[in-house]
Order: sequence, then structure tokens, then C-alpha cells
Amino acid sequence: MEIWRVNVRTQTVRREPVPKEWEHLGGRGLSARILLDEVPPTCEPLGPYNKLVFAPGLLVGHRLSSCDRISIGGKSPLTGGIKESNAGGSSGFALAQLGIKALIIEDEPDQEEWWVLHLSVDGAEFDPVDDLAGAGVYETAELLLQDYGKGVSMALIGPAGEMQLRAAGIQNLDQDGVPSRIAARGGLGALMGSKGLKAIVINPAGGKKPPIVDRASFRAAQKAYTQALTQHPQTKTYADYGTAAMVNMCQYFGSLPTRGFSAGQFEGADEISGEHLRDVLLERDAESKTTHACMSGCAIHCSNVYGGPDGKRIVSPLEYETIGLMGSNLGIADLDAIARLNREANDLGLDSIDTGAALGVAAQAGLLKWGDAERALDLVGEIRRGTPLGRILGNGAATAGRVLGVERVPVVKGQAMSAYDPRAIKGTGVTYATSPMGADHTAGLTIRAKVDHLDPQGQASVSRGAQISMAGYDTLGACIFAGFGFAAAPPDTIANLLNARYGWSVAEDILQQLGRETISLEREFNRRAGFTAADDRLPEWMTREPLPPTNAVFDVPAEDLDTLFNW
Amino acid sequence: MEIWRVNVRTQTVRREPVPKEWEHLGGRGLSARILLDEVPPTCEPLGPYNKLVFAPGLLVGHRLSSCDRISIGGKSPLTGGIKESNAGGSSGFALAQLGIKALIIEDEPDQEEWWVLHLSVDGAEFDPVDDLAGAGVYETAELLLQDYGKGVSMALIGPAGEMQLRAAGIQNLDQDGVPSRIAARGGLGALMGSKGLKAIVINPAGGKKPPIVDRASFRAAQKAYTQALTQHPQTKTYADYGTAAMVNMCQYFGSLPTRGFSAGQFEGADEISGEHLRDVLLERDAESKTTHACMSGCAIHCSNVYGGPDGKRIVSPLEYETIGLMGSNLGIADLDAIARLNREANDLGLDSIDTGAALGVAAQAGLLKWGDAERALDLVGEIRRGTPLGRILGNGAATAGRVLGVERVPVVKGQAMSAYDPRAIKGTGVTYATSPMGADHTAGLTIRAKVDHLDPQGQASVSRGAQISMAGYDTLGACIFAGFGFAAAPPDTIANLLNARYGWSVAEDILQQLGRETISLEREFNRRAGFTAADDRLPEWMTREPLPPTNAVFDVPAEDLDTLFNW
Repeated sequence: MEIWRVNVRTQTVRREPVPKEWEHLGGRGLSARILLDEVPPTCEPLGPYNKLVFAPGLLVGHRLSSCDRISIGGKSPLTGGIKESNAGGSSGFALAQLGIKALIIEDEPDQEEWWVLHLSVDGAEFDPVDDLAGAGVYETAELLLQDYGKGVSMALIGPAGEMQLRAAGIQNLDQDGVPSRIAARGGLGALMGSKGLKAIVINPAGGKKPPIVDRASFRAAQKAYTQALTQHPQTKTYADYGTAAMVNMCQYFGSLPTRGFSAGQFEGADEISGEHLRDVLLERDAESKTTHACMSGCAIHCSNVYGGPDGKRIVSPLEYETIGLMGSNLGIADLDAIARLNREANDLGLDSIDTGAALGVAAQAGLLKWGDAERALDLVGEIRRGTPLGRILGNGAATAGRVLGVERVPVVKGQAMSAYDPRAIKGTGVTYATSPMGADHTAGLTIRAKVDHLDPQGQASVSRGAQISMAGYDTLGACIFAGFGFAAAPPDTIANLLNARYGWSVAEDILQQLGRETISLEREFNRRAGFTAADDRLPEWMTREPLPPTNAVFDVPAEDLDTLFNW
Repeated sequence: MEIWRVNVRTQTVRREPVPKEWEHLGGRGLSARILLDEVPPTCEPLGPYNKLVFAPGLLVGHRLSSCDRISIGGKSPLTGGIKESNAGGSSGFALAQLGIKALIIEDEPDQEEWWVLHLSVDGAEFDPVDDLAGAGVYETAELLLQDYGKGVSMALIGPAGEMQLRAAGIQNLDQDGVPSRIAARGGLGALMGSKGLKAIVINPAGGKKPPIVDRASFRAAQKAYTQALTQHPQTKTYADYGTAAMVNMCQYFGSLPTRGFSAGQFEGADEISGEHLRDVLLERDAESKTTHACMSGCAIHCSNVYGGPDGKRIVSPLEYETIGLMGSNLGIADLDAIARLNREANDLGLDSIDTGAALGVAAQAGLLKWGDAERALDLVGEIRRGTPLGRILGNGAATAGRVLGVERVPVVKGQAMSAYDPRAIKGTGVTYATSPMGADHTAGLTIRAKVDHLDPQGQASVSRGAQISMAGYDTLGACIFAGFGFAAAPPDTIANLLNARYGWSVAEDILQQLGRETISLEREFNRRAGFTAADDRLPEWMTREPLPPTNAVFDVPAEDLDTLFNW
């Protein structure tokens, strides 16, 4: 495989062999290594010295269930630290078919113009697309699929990324060619916008699957993994309810973000639950689907297609994080309304988590009544129009709080929390506080751990384990839900897959090894960028303000946070 | 003398003896000591754990020329680090008459109400002033002088502080009772607003000058200092032209901020120069004054009263920093227009430096044409109305840049640079980068040093000396211009004054001792708040973008910045 290095100023590409020190990494781990090696950690994130990295994980390219994810990395315009945001869909698989271990986008354009970077077996080309300036991702994807053919994959930005708003993400196509798999977090869409790229079109035609050194062993390990995954009870839960199953779980624990994280239970939880979502979608046939796979070969199908009362698709997928941040967090108990908000955020190429949290800040500032979905849609419209208020909100919750004078903002390192109030799920609070990524459940969710989530003791160790595993999975290119399968499969399954694929002889604990190495690289980048223990904290108000109904505050000792990564 | 500790939640005051470790400090040094001892460095600046400190300098209370300044301190809502902002006027003198070595405002109010804290020989009282909510500082001061009598001093905030905007400062009355001496920098007005205080009224009636242990020696040292000061040529320059004399000096060096710090010389410099200012004021008699003292007893009279074409006072004083940031920085070559902008910023209780820099950002974002003073006034009007755009600008240049998507923002640690482009005056650039205060010329201006200001070598040492002296003067309560006198007087003058006043036996280098101690305390606070060497840098674009006409970039080696405080 190769490193493709693209300079957006000179519009040239260099195809390079993979440096030896990068070989054993992929996805998030490789992205971290590249950024630490090549990007000055104190650089301006939207300036010429930052780089945007696309790296498929180590196992990507073989239709191994839920293991074809793409990691996108850079210095975060949102947090100022290192950032990796990964997504499903087809981008990772397509890059792997072209033999690309990492695509590195460098420098900045001299002029304000919009380009498609077109990758194929023939190399890389720049095609001008100034006519697409301001277009939403749905229209953009449709037009580019017409131009480049249905078989291409794509990573693209919407108006939010063009405006370099710091809550902008990078959309990827799912297996149906719909832009729905967003690498949402950390403002990487703004970074892509600063490079002048509206879209990266990846044409895998003529490419091939990455080589496998020992096909028989690979197949055997794959079988063990797939069996474990398909037999796992969670797989059926996610197929039935999607991630929205989490609504009732969080309601039970009192950790469902409600009205600007002022309560942990929502009186409208039933109406936004996974169970209700399934009923609605079953009733509305036509384009609605209760279950759907974002990538080919996935055995879980956690995704869905949300159709409106008229049966027509509103958005795909409608996920728990969006339901939590744009639903209960705003006092909105109406799935149709949440789906419309989600569609708008998607089309703009915005992170629905940070946008939902920003709307919660706007509500605290008196700009939105709790539960007023029409006004919430209006406010997202302000973002599309690029008004001052829209720019405030589109830069995410932290900026919105600063500008609008709201102290109660649920952020760490400037990034909004996912839909788990950390006072009631304290292990996830530890993850929010200490992850090099800023607040992010995908860095190490602990809600399934068999612990008392309200007890401050021992949460650091729970979070540590989750963070290491997640960093490992993100380096493999494996979905968080692939973990159910790997955990239930024989313990050497991951090592067997890697050894068969690459001819290595890694040990059973390779997932932890990769996870620890990745986090260490990321923390070193952040240290050089100026992060300290002072950044590894939840906002002060969460240590003071009790969360009904548990009336918990976040009280995990600072020492536990500061020693978490001493390995 | 005493420490007065006021709790704004319980509305109580405790009068305490001065702890032994605080005795040898005053002003900025004392404020730093108190904050380091009592405020958690990582706390929310606008929350209950932050404190607002008013501390007259060590020499305050005796009408020693230019030595009655008040230091105001707290954790900065703007920078997130420690902050001291000092001002002339009468607040420092009045506090000293009440025997107050430091006033410490603590906690936060339970309800949103506005109060006057009234200090007198009878202690402290809270008077409700909800009717003054939203009033500008000019009206507020006038009404409160009617209520409390002409003889009182006052520290007060305008609408900007009430809105907790991070460019809000704290106004103080000059000797004519006009709110014109603003502790502008670092958002301390927002901090005062978060404490629910619209004004602190200080009634010195019945108070007395602080005791002097050895009156004869004090008088002798005072005489030596005053003679040296009055005979110094700069004293006449400042009396004639005020700080605006700096326009032509910066024009000469190519360091006059022009159109968003994109050039160092301004074609309209003549029309905004100190010489022109003097001509205008001489022509317009009536309320205009070319020279004016902000505090009683000052021998310099650097201030002025700027009257309009009709002779009526527009603003007092019109200073160089405002002329630079709201004039040349915006392409405005019209003193009347700059004076009107200044008056509006003053009335709102806004730092004219950070506001001017924010307007420069707005211009880069296309919201203001260079030179369009009417539109600039409109934008300041947005701040008064509290619109989203107004809140963006009123939170200062750094926030404006983040929200409006402008990279070229002249800030360090989130605080806007004063009117010296650091690429052409590199020693001052070192001060901007390394001062614990963020970018601020009063932390150590180097423009008068006899060095090649474009040479990156040796600037760290020039800045170090200036920073130490200024921290020392700020601890004494001495104006930056008092330094001309102390430097020309016998070298033991400051020690003689302190020894006579307090019965101490400090050595000749006491200014440097106090300066170093103060900066060390401040750096320790910032270290605990999470600041690192990464924060001691100018913005990246100033290291890349040449400044016409010298075409200098900022190229002082990082190592020089990082070793500056190794003493």
C-alpha cells in the first residue's frame, strides 16, 4: 500500500511508499502518528501547516463485518488538539481498493475556489466545482454521482465546512450512495474547507482488495468473529431499535440530557425511544426502514431510514446521539421534528451533537423556548444563511456559550458532550474529561459496564479500559459494535486476523497495544500543543449543580483523572 | 491598613488585618498574591470561585505625582489567566484614605439584581440600583454623584459589563468626577458584572492619608522624584501632545496598526497625530483641553479633553491606543470620528483596544469598509443593543475572529494587541507573547529602547527589563510615565520612599525585586490554570505575513521567549 500526499496549493500528488514506522498502524493510530510527525502542534488549525489525513483502519478492505471504517484526522479547529473522527459508509473500503494506506492533504490554496479531488487508479486530479459553492451535501452528492458514476465513494462537506464553522464535519456516502455517515466531531469539515476541497471522490474501479498473506487463516478468524457477532444479543437489539435503544437505558440511569443538561430524565422519553421509533417506521412503510447497513458486509444493520408521515425519507439514520442532543436536550418529544432538524444539520454538514448542544445554549440565552422545534429549525436556518447568530451556533456549543454569555455549557476541550450526562454515568464523564479528543462517547463509553455509575470510585479504571479498546478498534477500522463480536470470539481472533492479513506475529493483546500506543501519540501531540491536566476536567458547573433525579454531581477525584494514562 | 472582604451573595463585609505575607506588596503584586492564594486557577472566571480584587499600590494615598493608581485583578474572563488592569483617577487614592490595602469581592449573587457597593468610614453597604440596569457609565456616574455627593470616587461598569462581555472594563472617575479612567483590559468589567455590582462608590470623607513612618525622609525623596520628573523632556511632550505623540513615532518605525494590522504606516497618520490633535484642541476652545491631569497631584498632565466642532466635550481623554486601534487600524483618519467611537466604547464600559481590534476583524469579514466611521459606530451600537453581532464584537477580537472566520487576528492569550505592530517593534512583540497578561503594551513597552527594533536578536532582554520595571511600577501604584522621573532621580529614590513610608529597609533594586516577584506569582497562577510555552507565542500569521513597509515578520526565536523568565 502507499501514502498519497496531495498538495492543494500546487495541485500535485506524490505517491510514496509507507515509512517503516507507520506500517504497523492504520486508522486512528496512523493518523495520530502522521500528525505528530508532520504537523506543528501549535499551528493554526485552519492555516497552511495543518494537514487533513484520511486513513482506513488496519482491517479495512475485506468486507469484514463492521470493519471498513475510515478515520479522518487533523489538528482540530474546534478543540485545538489532535482529532480523529471516524465514519462508516464506503470511503474506507474504496481507499483501500486503491491501495491507499493514508491520504494526506497538505498546504492551503492561494485562491478561494472549490475543487473536487478525484482519486482513481490513474492517480489524483483536481476538478473545479465553484458551481457547487453553498450547495448542501444531499444535492452535492447527487450531482457528483451523476458526474463521476454511481460506483464512486465520496467524502464531502456542506455549507458549514465551506464557511469553516467549527462544528462542521465531513460526510461520507453509505452503501446506497446517500451522504449519511458523517465524521462529525471536532470541526474537520472546517479543516477540509480551509483546503478548498468540496469533495473527495474515490473511484475504486480497477482497484483490488488489499493483499492477504494467509487467506485460510484469515477466513477462519473471520468466521469465528462473524459467528460471535451475529449470535450476540446486542446485535439483534441494534438491528431492531438502532442506537435509539439507548434512550430508555439513559432514562433509566437518569443520564438522558434534558433541557440543556438540567435534568437526567425526560417526561417525553417514551415518544423518542427506540421502541417508539421502530413502531413509527413499521407503520410508515414506503421509504422507511427499521434496519439498514451503512456499509456492505455489515452483520448488525444498526442504521435506519426515517420516513415522514408521507412515507418519504426525511433522514438516514436517526441516531441516539441526535435524539438526545436535538430532542430531549431541547425539550422536543417529537421524532418527526428531530428528524427534520437532523436532516438540516446533515445537509449543512454539521455535527448534530455540537449543533444540538449549541441550540441548548441558545435556549438558555432566551433565543429558543424549550420544545419549540420550529424555532430550532429557524435557528439552523440562520446557520445556513451565515448570519452572525448562525455563525455563533455553527461554531458549536463552547463558542455559543462564550458569545451568548451562558456558563452552563456541556463541553470539554471545547467539544460538546454526547448524550450521556456525565454526572449520572461517571465513567463516561472520566472519558469526556481525559480523552485527547475532548468530550466524546465514542472515545470510551462505559454505560454497559457492570458498575454503580453514580459511585465516583473506580470509574477511572472503567474509562481507561474503554478508551484503550476504542482507540484500538479505531485503529483497526472496526465499528464500536464490532466489539461485541470480538469480545465474544476467541481471544486471539484480532491477532489472527492481523497476522493472516499482514504476515505478522502479534500477540493476543494487540488491541490493547494499539490502543495504548494511539492514545500515547495523541496525548503527546496535545502536550506539545499546550494541553495540561487543567484541560482534563469537566466544566466546573457540573461539579456544583446536582442532576435530578439522582441529584448527582461529578465528583471523580482529580487525582484519578490525572493518573489515568500512567501505564 | 486592612483587607476588606465583601461577599456579594450574603452581602456582608469582613474587615481583616493584613496577613504578614501580603504586607510588603500592593497593587498588582498584592493582587497576584491574593489570587494565587485564594482563587482556584482553573475556575470558571464568571462563576462563584473567582474573586475581584481592588488594590491601591504601595505608594498610593499621598498625592505623590502619578503614583495614586488602582490595580484591579481577577482571573480574566478574556484570557483565562491572571489579570491585573490598572487605572488612574481617584479610586486608588480614596481606597487608601479608608485604610483599605485590598478590597476582595467574593462569591456570586443568588439573583439577577444590580447593586452599588458603598464604602465609607462606616464600612460597606449594599444599595439596590436595578433602575440603573442598562445605563451607560456617563449617566450612571452623574446619577450616583448626585446620590452620594460630589466628593466620592467610583469604579463602575456599563452595559458591556452587565452583559458580561469579555472586552468589558471597569471605569473610574478622574479628578473632575468624569468616568474616563478605565481598567480596560482582560474583561474585568464582565467579572464585576458577574458579581452583580454596577458600581463601587468610595466615600473618603473622614478617612485619612496612610501613615508615614519617617515624614522628613519621605518629603526628601518625594522632592528628588518630582524634580527629576518635571525636568524630564518627556514630561513636556506628554503635556503638549498626550500619548498621541506616539502616532508619528509609530509611523516612523512602521509599526502603526493600519487596516487590520496589514500595514505599519498609514497615509492618514498626519490627521490623527498628536500634533494635529493639539492644533484641533487649541482651535476649539470651550471645553477642549490639550492637557489635563487624571489624578490630583500629577505633574505630567498627559490627558486631554476632546471637544467637538461645537466646542462641547466628546470624550476625555483621547489616547494613542484608541487612535491606533479605532483610527488607523480601521482606516479612519478623522479625529472627530475616532473621538465619537471612543465615547461610545467608554460609555458602554468597553476596552477600546479590544473593541477596535474586533472592528478590524469585522472589516476583514466584510462587515465594515475600511474608513467607514459611521458603520463602525453602527457596529458599536449593535454591542449596546446586545444583538448577536454585538455580542460577537463585544467579546473582543479573539472571539470575533473565531466566530466570523478570520484568521488574521492580532491577539495573544485571547487579548488584543495594543497599537504597536510587533513585527516592527519586536521587543514589544516579546512582551505581548510572554506577559502573563496577554498582549498588552503596559506590560512592557520597548519602543524607546535604543535598539534596532527590527533585529530579532536581543529583544528578549529588552522586554525582560521593561516587564520587570512595569510590574514593579504597577505594584507601587505608579503610572508608566512616573518611570521617567524615577529613572532620572537618584537610584535610591524608590527605596527611600518605601522605607520612609513603611519603616522598611529595602535595597535600591526594590523595583526589580517587586517586579520579579509579581511576574513569578502571575506565571505560577497561569501555570496552574493550564498555560504553557505554547501560549507564549504571537499568532502564527504574524510569523508568515510581512508587514509593509519594512516587510518584517516576527522572528524572535522561540527559545528566547521560553527562557525569558529564567531568573
